[in-house]
Amino acid sequence: MFTTTAEFLDLLHSAPGPHPQAQADAADRNAQLTKPPGALGRLEDLAQWYAGWRGDARPSIDAAQIVVFAGNHGVCAQGVSAFPSEVTAQMVLNFQAGGAAINQLAKAVGARLDVHALDLDRPTQDFTQAPAMTEAELVSALRAGWDAVRPETDLLVAGEMGIGNTTSAAAIACALFGEEPADWTGRGTGVDDAGLVAKTAAVSTGVSLHVGRSGLDVLRCLGGREIAAMAGAIAAARSRRIPVILDGFICCAAAACLAAEAPDALAHCVAGHKSAEAAHGEVLNALGLSPLLSLDMRLGEASGGAAAISILRAAVACHSGMATFAEAGVATE
Amino acid sequence: MFTTTAEFLDLLHSAPGPHPQAQADAADRNAQLTKPPGALGRLEDLAQWYAGWRGDARPSIDAAQIVVFAGNHGVCAQGVSAFPSEVTAQMVLNFQAGGAAINQLAKAVGARLDVHALDLDRPTQDFTQAPAMTEAELVSALRAGWDAVRPETDLLVAGEMGIGNTTSAAAIACALFGEEPADWTGRGTGVDDAGLVAKTAAVSTGVSLHVGRSGLDVLRCLGGREIAAMAGAIAAARSRRIPVILDGFICCAAAACLAAEAPDALAHCVAGHKSAEAAHGEVLNALGLSPLLSLDMRLGEASGGAAAISILRAAVACHSGMATFAEAGVATE
Repeated sequence: MFTTTAEFLDLLHSAPGPHPQAQADAADRNAQLTKPPGALGRLEDLAQWYAGWRGDARPSIDAAQIVVFAGNHGVCAQGVSAFPSEVTAQMVLNFQAGGAAINQLAKAVGARLDVHALDLDRPTQDFTQAPAMTEAELVSALRAGWDAVRPETDLLVAGEMGIGNTTSAAAIACALFGEEPADWTGRGTGVDDAGLVAKTAAVSTGVSLHVGRSGLDVLRCLGGREIAAMAGAIAAARSRRIPVILDGFICCAAAACLAAEAPDALAHCVAGHKSAEAAHGEVLNALGLSPLLSLDMRLGEASGGAAAISILRAAVACHSGMATFAEAGVATE
Repeated sequence: MFTTTAEFLDLLHSAPGPHPQAQADAADRNAQLTKPPGALGRLEDLAQWYAGWRGDARPSIDAAQIVVFAGNHGVCAQGVSAFPSEVTAQMVLNFQAGGAAINQLAKAVGARLDVHALDLDRPTQDFTQAPAMTEAELVSALRAGWDAVRPETDLLVAGEMGIGNTTSAAAIACALFGEEPADWTGRGTGVDDAGLVAKTAAVSTGVSLHVGRSGLDVLRCLGGREIAAMAGAIAAARSRRIPVILDGFICCAAAACLAAEAPDALAHCVAGHKSAEAAHGEVLNALGLSPLLSLDMRLGEASGGAAAISILRAAVACHSGMATFAEAGVATE
């Protein structure tokens, strides 16, 4: 466990890789299954990737976990969102009552859903004025994420709820990847033209104020508690060889902060989807990730990652359940 | 019911559309759900489309059916496939024993799987020499498909197994949509370069021999029993307002024969996926369909359509399960 960002970075840099033997055994099994070679396309790659991380050449997914973190953002004072900050807490109540999209998706894909509200009555600082978080606040949020991953979890999707957080994600992406603030700034939940101007200006001011930082310092200065918690959860999953399906733009901004610190930090992750938030595709490109789904979703709440659980389940079901040519008595040529 | 292709066409032309009131009520409900407008992207469109066809503004999917038809092809004599024709029957046994990819996928998405082997010991005629089927054989195959759709089914995926049938599908697409035989001819289960030359030549000869036909006559002359059966099943689903998820290249070639007879014949269908068989994307474009998944699958067996069931389930689960803003007490702006 960690109590400083330096200790967190040590864990990140010393994280384990996949099991080479399980990977090789899974590839061997895949070659014998009753289908033309490669005919299941990405499902074959997914199953072997999952097998490698789980250390099991014929794995199953028995304990998928979706965790949603909620946080509030000081930058909302700049008029960056179509919704008031109160909606963050209202949506947490909706999650707890089972009424949100992610509740239905978690049920549909057979995943456990945990929701963690992070100091909603204490928004981060407005990053156009000051760093969003102190070092202690960042560590606390990373810890909240790390601790949220359950010991039995064998597949993780981390997501978020936080009015104003596409502004934060845009600023993170701009600080990490360069280009213009407008290139990373989109309409989020649906701001109007005036809102988009204010949002782009906020991103520009924030990035100028906090330029030249490391991945974790970008996260501290421009992020939010829920974004840092996703980063902590993704890192915790890696430390336990738990595969992760990334959600959309904001989740990937969190992940990008880890990748900026350790290029291999996301080897245990696949991109669940490409969202309708235009900059998400750019972040995926920058991270070298190819999304499983592209359904124009832009809700957050881990919804895109959750939908993609069913694709990974399909992949693992085929890999672990199919007969081999020898078992089925099917000719191979 | 029908006993001639003329009667089948009458049923096709008189097929019902979606319920306008259910569609309107579903759109109204969608606008009240606790999410920014449009934030679930294609999931919102899917749920409303499904609601309209089912005549229920808040539907559920309780009886998804996957039906796989198997047939053998005389054109295999031209050396068009990497596998011998015996594999069709061997794979049917594999389906029956639960060892194929589609068995695992059906279980993973919670769908019933039915397999119908259609006269495997009596391949169609080699379409480079003669029409693949007689009128009576076509009607019999259409009927097999029509009758395979169960009364309680509320979502249908039709798929196929048939060594040589990408050759048949390529010839159908070329006959319906024009362009060059090579534009529609791919490697299928994985033919080598010599096989691809033979396959393209067979498509070219077949299309030249049977040029200028109507949709159903293209199906008769260049199709196969399993392809006609898929067309019959898709038409049966339409007659009962059962939504259909189309599978890959061969399924879409079957569907295209219906669309050639009645432009609106596929209004109850969505494209489950875009396969790795290059011409599939062109067929989807020609049919005006946008695939839900694009995972480089090219197995057939209804596998791509089956994987997409989980996406439609997610869509319907969100639509029918979510709370409205009023129910959840969430601010709308």
